[in-house]
Amino acid sequence: MAVYTDVSDEEIESFIAAYDIGGLMSFKGIAEGVENSNYLVHTESGQFILTLYEKRVAEEDLPYFLELMEHLAERGIRCPQPIHGRDGKVLRKLAGRPAALIEFLEGMWVRRPRMEHCRELGTTLAKFHLAGADYSGHRKNALSVSGWRPIFEAAKADADSVAPGLAREMEEELQAFERGWPSGLPEGVIHADLFPDNVFFLGEKLSGLIDFYFACNDAFAYDVAICLNAWCFEPDLSFNVTKARALMTAYTEVRRFSDEEIAALPMLARGASMRFLVTRLYDWLNTPAGALVRPKDPMEYLRRMRFHRTVTSATQYGLEA
Amino acid sequence: MAVYTDVSDEEIESFIAAYDIGGLMSFKGIAEGVENSNYLVHTESGQFILTLYEKRVAEEDLPYFLELMEHLAERGIRCPQPIHGRDGKVLRKLAGRPAALIEFLEGMWVRRPRMEHCRELGTTLAKFHLAGADYSGHRKNALSVSGWRPIFEAAKADADSVAPGLAREMEEELQAFERGWPSGLPEGVIHADLFPDNVFFLGEKLSGLIDFYFACNDAFAYDVAICLNAWCFEPDLSFNVTKARALMTAYTEVRRFSDEEIAALPMLARGASMRFLVTRLYDWLNTPAGALVRPKDPMEYLRRMRFHRTVTSATQYGLEA
Repeated sequence: MAVYTDVSDEEIESFIAAYDIGGLMSFKGIAEGVENSNYLVHTESGQFILTLYEKRVAEEDLPYFLELMEHLAERGIRCPQPIHGRDGKVLRKLAGRPAALIEFLEGMWVRRPRMEHCRELGTTLAKFHLAGADYSGHRKNALSVSGWRPIFEAAKADADSVAPGLAREMEEELQAFERGWPSGLPEGVIHADLFPDNVFFLGEKLSGLIDFYFACNDAFAYDVAICLNAWCFEPDLSFNVTKARALMTAYTEVRRFSDEEIAALPMLARGASMRFLVTRLYDWLNTPAGALVRPKDPMEYLRRMRFHRTVTSATQYGLEA
Repeated sequence: MAVYTDVSDEEIESFIAAYDIGGLMSFKGIAEGVENSNYLVHTESGQFILTLYEKRVAEEDLPYFLELMEHLAERGIRCPQPIHGRDGKVLRKLAGRPAALIEFLEGMWVRRPRMEHCRELGTTLAKFHLAGADYSGHRKNALSVSGWRPIFEAAKADADSVAPGLAREMEEELQAFERGWPSGLPEGVIHADLFPDNVFFLGEKLSGLIDFYFACNDAFAYDVAICLNAWCFEPDLSFNVTKARALMTAYTEVRRFSDEEIAALPMLARGASMRFLVTRLYDWLNTPAGALVRPKDPMEYLRRMRFHRTVTSATQYGLEA
């Protein structure tokens, strides 16, 4: 839950006046999103999400994210659209932060995804990958292998306070990724953070994707691996191959995996575990007492990583041999 | 900001099915309110606030609050209305908590109230007091003089860690209230927590009151005193008599103060300071590190209390002699 930046009524009124959306009728902080401050805004013409970008999001990356949302929507991927001001711009300043007003997208995220949700996700993820093919923007994945080590180094000294032996296990894994991370796989724009709270459903139909603030250019199969981790483990952290099969099958009906992608999948899924393990570990050790956001448990991702280390073939993820 | 209780999508769907308001389209935690968990709910027929009552609100008091909201609205005081389910009920259970679905009220609360807002407040507060006259419910003010001492006793040992000499100053004040608290004043239903964040405006017009969960039967002038404290001090804690005069004058145009009320006002305002000083002090000392709600500074209310101790006549609050 997050509202990091307080906005006064005078500030919001003058901000809204830059748009052709009528007078302001209500604004309330909303308790979703971890990286940015989000407000629900009602005006005479409808409702909107106002996002203030906090320091973890690089201001120079914002056009990549916001234009991507428009690019995808033009190609049939439902996602909230940035609202253009009277001056044509989507980005402006509010309370000293970069800020954008975004369409309100109906739908609910699924707390406990079922097989049907995984199937919908697989279809949409593949369409997303195809729709990004002609996107002109480019953003390096700052949280791929080379990005993990500096975060680990900053957390290493205290890692064993979270779990004995953790520092050593992560060091060995990092070395394995640095040696053998797959390259040359099909790539393009990936979402890179497609957790259940970023995927909206109305009933069992996927109604849209949100939160593109980790999007970047990287291997499509790595995006799939992130989803396998986020959607196909049970609360007890056992892997649910039925859900994985639904996701993978639906994906391949839209976009086929190459042999190289299939071979790389166990390593990608193991690395996708490290990506969240290392950032969660850092946040776990560095979230001040009294912070508004509770850090997420890093150990969940250690257990996922250990599972993927035992995987010898992508058939274990439900892909047909 | 507050969402204390997590609600799953299955739970909210079956909760909403008890109402004749169409299918669920969205629900999001909102970062407002300190005592309860609040969600914004969209359905096919509109939008609503879902409130889950947390442990600080006594379940047996909920009908008093919810029926009061209906009683007041019938008499022209704009406030959000509880939605009745198909079974006629407004209170039910969700995620183990008492819960109610409430109308969404447009409007914004004013971060920096100006004189015009204080005038609107005075008018509405007096109308509220008149509108409650024939309300059949009765609820004792649990946070009047006799309620302050047990909270103080629980905080006393650590009070001087917040400000040297605070325990002694509060003890002396409590004794003064216990000896000389005004009685026999005109009374009825009061809001008892009418801070700026509980009063909505559209432009400069007051559009409604919210958050009736401290409402109770007590002296009307005590409610006025709470508002003087909450609306008429500047950020540097100097008293703004122009704002106070606007509030008091507007109030008296609707409901005249008796001579006894006028005479009692300095003591009531001093006590209204103690009421928030003592609860804020307790929260300050007892909020665990990592809590979702930041405790409010008790010292602001110590300074208000000291100001009122110097007041010798209600003319200093802007009332005509």
